[in-house]
Amino acid sequence: MTRRLALVGLGPGDPELVTAQAARVLREVDYFLVADKTERHPGTADLLAMRAEICARHVPDGWRVVRVADPERDRDAPADYGAAVRDWHEARAVAFERALLANEGDAAILVWGDPTLYDSAIRLADRLVERGAVDLRVEVVPGLSSVQLLAARHGLVLNTVGGPVTLTTGRRLLTDAGATNVAQGDNLVVLLDGALACRELPDPDAWQLWWGANLGSADEKLVAGRLSEVIDRVQREREEARRARGWVMDTYLLRRS
Amino acid sequence: MTRRLALVGLGPGDPELVTAQAARVLREVDYFLVADKTERHPGTADLLAMRAEICARHVPDGWRVVRVADPERDRDAPADYGAAVRDWHEARAVAFERALLANEGDAAILVWGDPTLYDSAIRLADRLVERGAVDLRVEVVPGLSSVQLLAARHGLVLNTVGGPVTLTTGRRLLTDAGATNVAQGDNLVVLLDGALACRELPDPDAWQLWWGANLGSADEKLVAGRLSEVIDRVQREREEARRARGWVMDTYLLRRS
Repeated sequence: MTRRLALVGLGPGDPELVTAQAARVLREVDYFLVADKTERHPGTADLLAMRAEICARHVPDGWRVVRVADPERDRDAPADYGAAVRDWHEARAVAFERALLANEGDAAILVWGDPTLYDSAIRLADRLVERGAVDLRVEVVPGLSSVQLLAARHGLVLNTVGGPVTLTTGRRLLTDAGATNVAQGDNLVVLLDGALACRELPDPDAWQLWWGANLGSADEKLVAGRLSEVIDRVQREREEARRARGWVMDTYLLRRS
Repeated sequence: MTRRLALVGLGPGDPELVTAQAARVLREVDYFLVADKTERHPGTADLLAMRAEICARHVPDGWRVVRVADPERDRDAPADYGAAVRDWHEARAVAFERALLANEGDAAILVWGDPTLYDSAIRLADRLVERGAVDLRVEVVPGLSSVQLLAARHGLVLNTVGGPVTLTTGRRLLTDAGATNVAQGDNLVVLLDGALACRELPDPDAWQLWWGANLGSADEKLVAGRLSEVIDRVQREREEARRARGWVMDTYLLRRS
């Protein structure tokens, strides 16, 4: 029998930023499949609390969580980043497949932000379908991304009039490939940047920065200004946020002055 | 007295794709300021019906609409696109200011999709604040963009693993400035493209296309495939959609094969 697997975008963290569709799907499925990272990353217990708050608001009759042990990812092999990510995806697919086989009914995978942007749930679901051990009907439920909340909080339009916007990663910003974006891009949104790569941009006076951390949560932080003038404050606030909760999620927009 | 002006992203059209926050703000304000384009664009009456459906679901106690005549925009001056847009913005700000002065209380401007992406409401509000005739507290309420729904419907992640995504306009895709995006971009999302500019890309065999029109509405259309193979079908479906409703809103992702 075909079972439903919904990939549900929860938005950036604030229960108010969940769509009516996501809330309905959360109520309809039998259980939530959740990658359990708490063993290796104790700080993520805090994220579990945020997720429980979202569920409490939108699934008043209660919900069932099936935890899936999250495989270790080889973060020491940046030379072949793509291959490391692919191996990790495969191990993850096997773990989720086992969980689906052990638990009947319709399932949802809960995703922070939007499954369509810098998230692995869609690729995971594609792999589960390819493997074929469970007969699945996959459904993508979009959610607000932290990028949109960053812009909303700063009262920003991400693009300049008629201009392009490039979304990229910290990892790419300073590579040869990324340098082209930097040279050409008037508007760069940077995600998944663990080290504030924008610190290393060659001309920090030429860029305006709008930064946000833990967007949508109670201790959201926002900083805006000329890159050269605000980067130290951003780094300080980022460190404070990380110390306070054990983790930090941040994103930023760079715009050529 | 400071009044509230909320710029509310309604999402792409489906009432289910509205966030809880947007629904709350719609209920809280005293009236909605709505640019009235029906006189010059009769087809947009249909959009008013879609908007009424969203309001009916999320504002059960009823709502008040204040119509603002939409100034004519000079579409014959592509040579200075930026200036034409700025003039139009100013005329629009004057019209909205008059409406705010004539109607007390808190207001919302309703935006299709997300105010932070290729939308003029934030710039309009900035200009209203600069003009200073009304004391406003502006609040941006993000919404799902049609880009996210496009990706969700096709079961797509917009980025390739670790790669960038560039959002741009049909107008830019084939200009010198846009050519750089095309040359460098593995993932291009095109918005505001009235003429399917991707038809003119030099190497149509080199691109995969994921296209969607009227996303989130009852007559949503989706096409995916190699650009060279599906572009005629896309153009046909686009024309059919436009004939059926008097308007069409579409967006697409191009990915290098």
